[in-house]
Amino acid sequence: MPLVGLGLWKIPTDITAQVVYDAIKIGYRLFDGATEYGNEKQVGQGVKKAIADGLVKREELTIVSKLWNNFHHPDNVKKAFARSLSDLDLEYIDIYYIHFPIAFKFVPFEERYPTGLYCGDGDNFHYEDVPIIETWRALEKIADEGKIKTLGISNFTGSLIQDLLRGARIKPSLLQIEHHAYLQQPRLIEYVQSAGINVVAYSTFGPASFIELNHPKVKEVGALFENATVVEVAKKHNVTPAQVLLRWTTQRGIAVIPKSSKPERLETNLKHEHFDLSEEELKQIAALDISYRFNDPWNWDKIPTFV
Amino acid sequence: MPLVGLGLWKIPTDITAQVVYDAIKIGYRLFDGATEYGNEKQVGQGVKKAIADGLVKREELTIVSKLWNNFHHPDNVKKAFARSLSDLDLEYIDIYYIHFPIAFKFVPFEERYPTGLYCGDGDNFHYEDVPIIETWRALEKIADEGKIKTLGISNFTGSLIQDLLRGARIKPSLLQIEHHAYLQQPRLIEYVQSAGINVVAYSTFGPASFIELNHPKVKEVGALFENATVVEVAKKHNVTPAQVLLRWTTQRGIAVIPKSSKPERLETNLKHEHFDLSEEELKQIAALDISYRFNDPWNWDKIPTFV
Repeated sequence: MPLVGLGLWKIPTDITAQVVYDAIKIGYRLFDGATEYGNEKQVGQGVKKAIADGLVKREELTIVSKLWNNFHHPDNVKKAFARSLSDLDLEYIDIYYIHFPIAFKFVPFEERYPTGLYCGDGDNFHYEDVPIIETWRALEKIADEGKIKTLGISNFTGSLIQDLLRGARIKPSLLQIEHHAYLQQPRLIEYVQSAGINVVAYSTFGPASFIELNHPKVKEVGALFENATVVEVAKKHNVTPAQVLLRWTTQRGIAVIPKSSKPERLETNLKHEHFDLSEEELKQIAALDISYRFNDPWNWDKIPTFV
Repeated sequence: MPLVGLGLWKIPTDITAQVVYDAIKIGYRLFDGATEYGNEKQVGQGVKKAIADGLVKREELTIVSKLWNNFHHPDNVKKAFARSLSDLDLEYIDIYYIHFPIAFKFVPFEERYPTGLYCGDGDNFHYEDVPIIETWRALEKIADEGKIKTLGISNFTGSLIQDLLRGARIKPSLLQIEHHAYLQQPRLIEYVQSAGINVVAYSTFGPASFIELNHPKVKEVGALFENATVVEVAKKHNVTPAQVLLRWTTQRGIAVIPKSSKPERLETNLKHEHFDLSEEELKQIAALDISYRFNDPWNWDKIPTFV
């Protein structure tokens, strides 16, 4: 699996197909999507065109999707996966994650799709009594059929991961989490890596990923792009602050999936592995950790625009 | 359930029966024991004598035990529970917890009992592939038979509790956690209380509970008994610092289980609800939180004397 992919969260449907196509042209091979991002049809269109135009072969691509909270019941796992597969217009999905370890009440596709935080009753969350292990076993069956190549979990924490490892027949290969200089969770990462699980970081740029959502926490911390340490390291290596933040991640074996729809940004995000941070620089960035989480289900009901 | 009980961890077997008997005489009704504390036979003896002497009736007592890590497999849940019941010489146990959400390899009673961190192979931990939900379902069956009155969980964290609530037929009624001024976890407590789970705090005195174990972290923080805020509040109310720490807990609806084998300490620990902290004092103690955990499985292999 490539260490750099394109994150598809918040890419508007009217440009998604083109962005995916352009990204493949530039050299992107991993596309991190999800049911919940609402643009899977367009991702599929971009992929299809790139393959038709001979830019890439299907087997060179790593296409990602994620099971949303409303579809944790085994029956709905099957339906939701089939819907993503059909929207993407693919024969199989390379990586399929459980998006959050949170089971919301089922909402039929006809009622709303994607569902966001909607559970059929205004702003109230309604949980569904499906423990993770039952959802996981439904996913294992789809993997048995060859329609999912790699199973992953996203936004899971330590003891829940440990418990899943106790019950899973097919162990999760990937953990995708919010991970940036302000939220580093070294212990979680050490634990899962020791258990043979690779880590994929989202929101590598920290607050920058949450500005367009009007996330109230964005104003509480400084932009990582303007952080004195990050800027200084960037100058020293003659790269952008974004490249420093990405390299700080990939250099530690953690994959990144930065989002961009601008060609030059797509390019600099992808090509950031030509330099290495020194031990000292890695330590300086490690020292920025303030355990500051933006994507926190605890606050979902306070951020109406969030998902 | 009483808000104050006697913690039986680290009470030596040669005095346990007498301590339990004395505590009942003073007015204790809740006894917080565990397989792992290695003194269940003696607890049973103290209880038996107190009942025989007419100090108390069985139904007035709340006797607690906990399932240790090596016994998570459903077959072993039954065996371990039966062993505790037999050691305590009781017909039923009032509260039975899963001690930690960690499944170690089974060790037969004949090989070692209690097992501590032993998994049959020196210092190495060996996990057993039993997810919590399977252990829980075995406990539900024992509760169905009436041999456990109340099921609890101990040392569980947020997302794992949420997942258990999704799969449990009988919901856990209690969560027992390390909880003191240095480790307050307000969000965890708010979450479980909102889910109808009552909280029981252990190690209310913080570092003081870990001195005798030569815990390396004890030296890193000041004693709570000598903390300026705690001492000042104690003076104002003419109580001991220990009573301040206990009241700070019980006043917020959280039960406490302080350990002591000294009669006067047993007395002051039990009788600490005759005063209330002011809003301002509650806030001052809340401000001492440094998220400092002593009983942390992450460090178990670094503290050989720990369990």
